[in-house]
Amino acid sequence: MLKRTVFFVSESTGITAETLGHSLISQFEKTVEFTTIYKPYINTAEKAQELVDRFNRLYQEQGYAPIVFATMAEPEIRVMLKRSSCLYIELFDTFIGPLSKELGVNPSGERGRSHGITNGDRYENRMSIINFAMTNDDGARLDKYDQADVILVGVSRSGKTPTCLYLAMHFGLRAANYPLTEEDFEQNKLPDVLLKHRQKLIALTIDPMRLSRIREERRPGSRYASLHRCQSEVRQALQYFTRHQLTVIDTTSYSIEEISSRIMNTIRTA
Amino acid sequence: MLKRTVFFVSESTGITAETLGHSLISQFEKTVEFTTIYKPYINTAEKAQELVDRFNRLYQEQGYAPIVFATMAEPEIRVMLKRSSCLYIELFDTFIGPLSKELGVNPSGERGRSHGITNGDRYENRMSIINFAMTNDDGARLDKYDQADVILVGVSRSGKTPTCLYLAMHFGLRAANYPLTEEDFEQNKLPDVLLKHRQKLIALTIDPMRLSRIREERRPGSRYASLHRCQSEVRQALQYFTRHQLTVIDTTSYSIEEISSRIMNTIRTA
Repeated sequence: MLKRTVFFVSESTGITAETLGHSLISQFEKTVEFTTIYKPYINTAEKAQELVDRFNRLYQEQGYAPIVFATMAEPEIRVMLKRSSCLYIELFDTFIGPLSKELGVNPSGERGRSHGITNGDRYENRMSIINFAMTNDDGARLDKYDQADVILVGVSRSGKTPTCLYLAMHFGLRAANYPLTEEDFEQNKLPDVLLKHRQKLIALTIDPMRLSRIREERRPGSRYASLHRCQSEVRQALQYFTRHQLTVIDTTSYSIEEISSRIMNTIRTA
Repeated sequence: MLKRTVFFVSESTGITAETLGHSLISQFEKTVEFTTIYKPYINTAEKAQELVDRFNRLYQEQGYAPIVFATMAEPEIRVMLKRSSCLYIELFDTFIGPLSKELGVNPSGERGRSHGITNGDRYENRMSIINFAMTNDDGARLDKYDQADVILVGVSRSGKTPTCLYLAMHFGLRAANYPLTEEDFEQNKLPDVLLKHRQKLIALTIDPMRLSRIREERRPGSRYASLHRCQSEVRQALQYFTRHQLTVIDTTSYSIEEISSRIMNTIRTA
């Protein structure tokens, strides 16, 4: 198998370089084995020179140039890296030119604004949104549902918690969740506290076989994890969801990002 | 002020398009007011045609073409969007060509792999990592520290919880955190359970003024939020950190992404 070394480089967090870079190399993973190295905060000529030396050394040792995904604002550092023995792929600046031309406006040159703190209020607001997801997890605080942007409802281990956290962290949504338990199934209806906020509810469902496997890991051999119990819970939950015409998302074969963006898509009907 | 409409379009989650697109337009925000619209899951010709009609309509109404940031694998849909009245910026495919040439390998054409579930195990592993951060928050389960990749230590509200969640969600790290409390300060030392895992510890500190402001929001007028108490806690915590030569990160003016990538940078010394 081919082997190549990949660097994600930035003068800031490098999160864009890492995310998009990983996504790009995943297109070649069947034939190439990649070693990935993460290098954020390359913000001085000294640090850049160290990297240049490393690239040149790797090229000599391996006979192949390392592949460098970068978001580098500083032109001098960019030139240093570009001139070394590497395939330099600039993920940010590539697009600034065309965009600037279309808008007829020069870029501000300030970088990292999407991830930096532009002002304290925004940071505190974000903290409070993440706290909201933490303290409203697992039906812990039913009295706060009027403050929620969205309330996820589903059986235990259907994916509510990580989805809420992702919605909070990435999309800035106040996300609460409510786990349907045996008690709710005995009542044969969704609890009133949920129905009061029906327009905020989004239901998660999951394949019972998969649910059983996930629960089995948590409590091996338990009734809670048994296929029979999982099948019965999922079936009853789906009946509730249909009765109240909730939007239902099947989490069985989706990642947290996919579930979250599906939820965003149903909310932002813009 | 100039006004422009921006779309983030993808046949999948569109998270790459949204993240990088936002970062790009932030360079022009001082002079242009952007309205942003998120359009994931454009995966049929019908959905694409709806968008094309919308772009054309917007162009007629506003006199300016909407700006479209896209990660679109399907060539036919890409062509449809490109031919409409918009500035079409393809964030993914732009780089696939040069990469493919350098590697001498054709891309697999499978998309969304970075965010999709490639196999069940990986998904369950990720869930378990996020659960680890949730259940090991706020010093809740000291007995699990041997399983942690990293343990954040700091006073209450110094940024431990959201950082742990981000480390778990984005970097797949098992992250626990321990809040230093009055009890720890009375003992005049870090608790033994932490010292046992000294090599995993990363310390967070924060400006006392800012800390007081953050705590004030949580418990207004409390002793907990008083500047005096915040100053004393931060000072004592820093003494402990210095005594045990811990890596200290000041969270005062950094975002969660920045704090997390600094932590990754100290851990992955590759």
